[in-house]
Amino acid sequence: MSRGKQFLSDNAASVHPAVWEAMKAADTADAPYDGDALSRRMDDAFGELFARECSVLWAATGTAANCLALGTMVQPHGGVICHREAHIEMDEGGAPGFYLHGAKLLLADGDGAKLTPETIAAVADAVREGVHQVHPHAISITQASEYGRAYRPAELAAIGALSRERALPLHMDGARFANAAAFLGCSAAEAAGPVDALSFGCVKNGGMNAEAIVFFAPGLADVARFRLKRAGQLQSKGRFLAAQILAMVEGGLWLANARAANAAAQEIAGAAGDRLLHPVEANELFVRCSAEERAALRGQGFGFYDWGTGAGRFVTAWNTRPDDALALAKALASL
Amino acid sequence: MSRGKQFLSDNAASVHPAVWEAMKAADTADAPYDGDALSRRMDDAFGELFARECSVLWAATGTAANCLALGTMVQPHGGVICHREAHIEMDEGGAPGFYLHGAKLLLADGDGAKLTPETIAAVADAVREGVHQVHPHAISITQASEYGRAYRPAELAAIGALSRERALPLHMDGARFANAAAFLGCSAAEAAGPVDALSFGCVKNGGMNAEAIVFFAPGLADVARFRLKRAGQLQSKGRFLAAQILAMVEGGLWLANARAANAAAQEIAGAAGDRLLHPVEANELFVRCSAEERAALRGQGFGFYDWGTGAGRFVTAWNTRPDDALALAKALASL
Amino acid sequence: MSRGKQFLSDNAASVHPAVWEAMKAADTADAPYDGDALSRRMDDAFGELFARECSVLWAATGTAANCLALGTMVQPHGGVICHREAHIEMDEGGAPGFYLHGAKLLLADGDGAKLTPETIAAVADAVREGVHQVHPHAISITQASEYGRAYRPAELAAIGALSRERALPLHMDGARFANAAAFLGCSAAEAAGPVDALSFGCVKNGGMNAEAIVFFAPGLADVARFRLKRAGQLQSKGRFLAAQILAMVEGGLWLANARAANAAAQEIAGAAGDRLLHPVEANELFVRCSAEERAALRGQGFGFYDWGTGAGRFVTAWNTRPDDALALAKALASL
Amino acid sequence: MSRGKQFLSDNAASVHPAVWEAMKAADTADAPYDGDALSRRMDDAFGELFARECSVLWAATGTAANCLALGTMVQPHGGVICHREAHIEMDEGGAPGFYLHGAKLLLADGDGAKLTPETIAAVADAVREGVHQVHPHAISITQASEYGRAYRPAELAAIGALSRERALPLHMDGARFANAAAFLGCSAAEAAGPVDALSFGCVKNGGMNAEAIVFFAPGLADVARFRLKRAGQLQSKGRFLAAQILAMVEGGLWLANARAANAAAQEIAGAAGDRLLHPVEANELFVRCSAEERAALRGQGFGFYDWGTGAGRFVTAWNTRPDDALALAKALASL
Repeated sequence: MSRGKQFLSDNAASVHPAVWEAMKAADTADAPYDGDALSRRMDDAFGELFARECSVLWAATGTAANCLALGTMVQPHGGVICHREAHIEMDEGGAPGFYLHGAKLLLADGDGAKLTPETIAAVADAVREGVHQVHPHAISITQASEYGRAYRPAELAAIGALSRERALPLHMDGARFANAAAFLGCSAAEAAGPVDALSFGCVKNGGMNAEAIVFFAPGLADVARFRLKRAGQLQSKGRFLAAQILAMVEGGLWLANARAANAAAQEIAGAAGDRLLHPVEANELFVRCSAEERAALRGQGFGFYDWGTGAGRFVTAWNTRPDDALALAKALASL
Repeated sequence: MSRGKQFLSDNAASVHPAVWEAMKAADTADAPYDGDALSRRMDDAFGELFARECSVLWAATGTAANCLALGTMVQPHGGVICHREAHIEMDEGGAPGFYLHGAKLLLADGDGAKLTPETIAAVADAVREGVHQVHPHAISITQASEYGRAYRPAELAAIGALSRERALPLHMDGARFANAAAFLGCSAAEAAGPVDALSFGCVKNGGMNAEAIVFFAPGLADVARFRLKRAGQLQSKGRFLAAQILAMVEGGLWLANARAANAAAQEIAGAAGDRLLHPVEANELFVRCSAEERAALRGQGFGFYDWGTGAGRFVTAWNTRPDDALALAKALASL
Repeated sequence: MSRGKQFLSDNAASVHPAVWEAMKAADTADAPYDGDALSRRMDDAFGELFARECSVLWAATGTAANCLALGTMVQPHGGVICHREAHIEMDEGGAPGFYLHGAKLLLADGDGAKLTPETIAAVADAVREGVHQVHPHAISITQASEYGRAYRPAELAAIGALSRERALPLHMDGARFANAAAFLGCSAAEAAGPVDALSFGCVKNGGMNAEAIVFFAPGLADVARFRLKRAGQLQSKGRFLAAQILAMVEGGLWLANARAANAAAQEIAGAAGDRLLHPVEANELFVRCSAEERAALRGQGFGFYDWGTGAGRFVTAWNTRPDDALALAKALASL
Repeated sequence: MSRGKQFLSDNAASVHPAVWEAMKAADTADAPYDGDALSRRMDDAFGELFARECSVLWAATGTAANCLALGTMVQPHGGVICHREAHIEMDEGGAPGFYLHGAKLLLADGDGAKLTPETIAAVADAVREGVHQVHPHAISITQASEYGRAYRPAELAAIGALSRERALPLHMDGARFANAAAFLGCSAAEAAGPVDALSFGCVKNGGMNAEAIVFFAPGLADVARFRLKRAGQLQSKGRFLAAQILAMVEGGLWLANARAANAAAQEIAGAAGDRLLHPVEANELFVRCSAEERAALRGQGFGFYDWGTGAGRFVTAWNTRPDDALALAKALASL
């Protein structure tokens, strides 16, 4: 179950034993779709985690989770303000265009792939009045961001204030929400801030193929339920998805796994020093290194992706072995 | 892992031990998405099964499999000829409208929810020339049909001939393909006939959450691959889906499980006699019985769905216990 | 400008002189799109006609008008209850699937292509609870219907009551609304009944290429405005569309033209006697006649469409010459 | 019919008398939709103009023309490479997202809102292989561009070569195609270059509400015909649109009108001198001037739009009076 010296991504890591166990325990036949006892337990589990009432659905992928959440907020003629390097813009194969029936992503700037009230407002304000341009209907942020940066609670509060002021519901892509929360050292509620819907990631954090969609704003889940079925995402043995999610959430595994991944990242970050393109706040490292240096690292058995022409991206996971992290740290230090 | 005296559906049955085993064996990290060794083995596995070259993708649900297959055949302004009781029309929450971007289902008749060349042609011929009505772009049939009826190889050949004559690609919804093949006692190739794409069901037959989409016509899979990602169906740990499918196909489990389910259905069918609304050819039984009789059966612990006001639907599964089938048979005989 | 002995359709008839005059008068440059003085006058003009506050947009075709109206009522995962012979189902080339992003038409029955509360409820009630089937979000009726039948005020009230009870907004396709109102001899408001949106036809009634979309329910027009632009329907010289519509509405031309067409139809109906498949209440006649009889009529110079194999459809227009109507009446009487 | 001292846009200018005349002449009833004699004459008229076989449809707006053309080239999961200031990106209210079913605009750079082979290739090359990013399916350029710049025949040839090399069909938004051709002083064929489809503008050039969609690549028009109906763009009295287009094309009015507009623009350009943000090659002028200067101009009765905070946009039309152009030239010179 080891990932060896691989730092390619956390998205294909092994499944955590506790998740396996929960899935096996779910094998007894139960009501189909989301009518089973486990699926029905999700609202309470997340309600407790976030200390806030919520309705929770599952989906097989983060792409589906993001798009189903946004689909409750955005009409087909509207748009979503997101960072120009957001996953929904860069890596989802046009899924937002599909799920949102042609709605448009309105791209905003921000350091470390994080939005600010100013960059959001700049996009919104640039839209001319009238019907000739697409108006924003929602905002989507990523916690932790695509560069592994975490929004602080105060930053979330400020974005939330803008969201309410402009009547633009707020979505959070939390594919690595756990890593952000672990870094921030705050409660789940504080790490989410005043979002209306959250894609709560499990797959990158020791799950197999289940992500949670947490709706805090009332009414949204009722729409999402229909859209989820219509998107071919309603699995008849949904209890196996709920089992994964509950295994993550109910016992605190989500946080423990994220802490392990973050710790490995910090070990490496310490050695990377000023080679780091971005402060390391979650489990992703963007490290400046030449093609020759990258070749040397690969020669030592390390797996990772090139990031542009002058850097590499290294990602740790819940099961990154301390020895492997240490070895990478040493290798980077010796470059 | 037993389903007790439940005959509600096969869609929530337990997962077969061999499937579990294959999933566990796939836990070692591998390339993400469909780049792993298992996903790459599917083409060969199905090529051997059908003795015909093919490209195979996985998806989490039958709805997704059907719609992704049809999406390669139908333009948004076109239509799909299908039976008016087909799953894509009746039970997929409008997914075809979503995946096919507003294309239309053109509803045809036929006994036992099976189409014939005549009923297909009747629909196609009724469309006026010109652009004022939606023209068919494809045909979709279900093997076994929604009433548990199997298309014979000669019937498939006749529909295939029409499909080629009219240049309407042919899709087969094979959510219960295994049950049909088991009943027909023919090869997989014969049970599929000259289809261009097949949704090969696993979930109802002992799988967890993986269906195979088998493309026989060249080129279609290349389009479907993009659509699959865009639909949020491309799981990063796709090896767990491939593992399920290969466990089904490579060792013949698909057929063994279907035979078990069919045998249980035949046991019950023998007792239901002329109460049967449809000949039992797969694992579904539609049994005429009054509200009182249904209440009596439920009083004895049997679970099943009402079918309209004068009948019940009973479905067996790969793990229906012979004792339970026998018990139901006796109960029906004593009504 | 005569249509000769043509009874093919009213949809390609000449444009009424008063409409031409209004268009010419609109030629002076004005604000683009719908910002011109004429477009801005439409709300008041229709508000007066219907004695009810409303917001009015224009579109080039009835198909666009219908679909833009329905688009304000129906989410992509929903459906529209309409008659199985409704224009949106039979003759709009799948436009509802496009404009409504894959929403579904849910087909209901009814004599003369008219719905009743009972047939509407039958469709709604047949939809299973839960997400596996498409639920209705709106109702669409046609005044006059596809068979030239007019809904009486009491019938509209009954459908309106159901619409409110079920929270299903009500749309009326009024491509031939004027003909229905002329037949009923009631006010425009009574002929519309409690609808939330009305496609008010002009093209078939002496206009060139402008239909009005009248929104009675508040808020809908604000959505439709964006959808109209997005559909490529927002003409920059929109004043020429508004001019047509105002020419129709402000001076009562809509009613005068419809009365003329209806009178010609009645002339013919009187001669057709029990050959009529449907009572003639607007300007369409469905006349039972054999292939030989149809050939004979065509030999005498009459133009019309076959209606199935045993009938012909004859349509009068605002400019049908009394002599031509009389000639057809005589010809039918002599068959 | 004068526009006074208005330089706001050419999009709401009066209709040319010859266009009115042609429309009146079309008033005799004819076959509905595009079956009339005028609509059927368009292929030949444009075939002669471009000295190349083509299929021609009409639509009411440039937005519809662009989107219908692109819809024949781009699958829903694909993208269109266009300039980041292209009309389809900036001013069509999300219509491409609607007509192309969620396909994506892939934004490229280029001086004067013109693309080059290099900027097109840069966008195409930046798309990662595989299904995680949207791949381009087509290229769209604008002649004249959004800044009134004309592609030279050699530039078109170079883009055409790339288009063929990459198998990306080429679309041209020709809302002001006539102005570009008039400026270039070349044939229509040379001004179009090797495009596969051209939106040929009439509305801004003296028409009322008809644009031509010219398909040079075989097969595309057959798809567009269905999409046009489905988009609610198929007018039943289509002869009035064809009449406008033929009036423009058959007698050379398209070129004469554009020359008049261009001449007025040149008159003004001469006076604007180095205030011009872009060379004036068509009928649009972007003139650097302060808020005070703009207020002064408006005080003298000139109408125009602000362009950002330090410039104004002035547009001439076919019917701009020489006196008005001269007056504006003088006013600019005296600033």
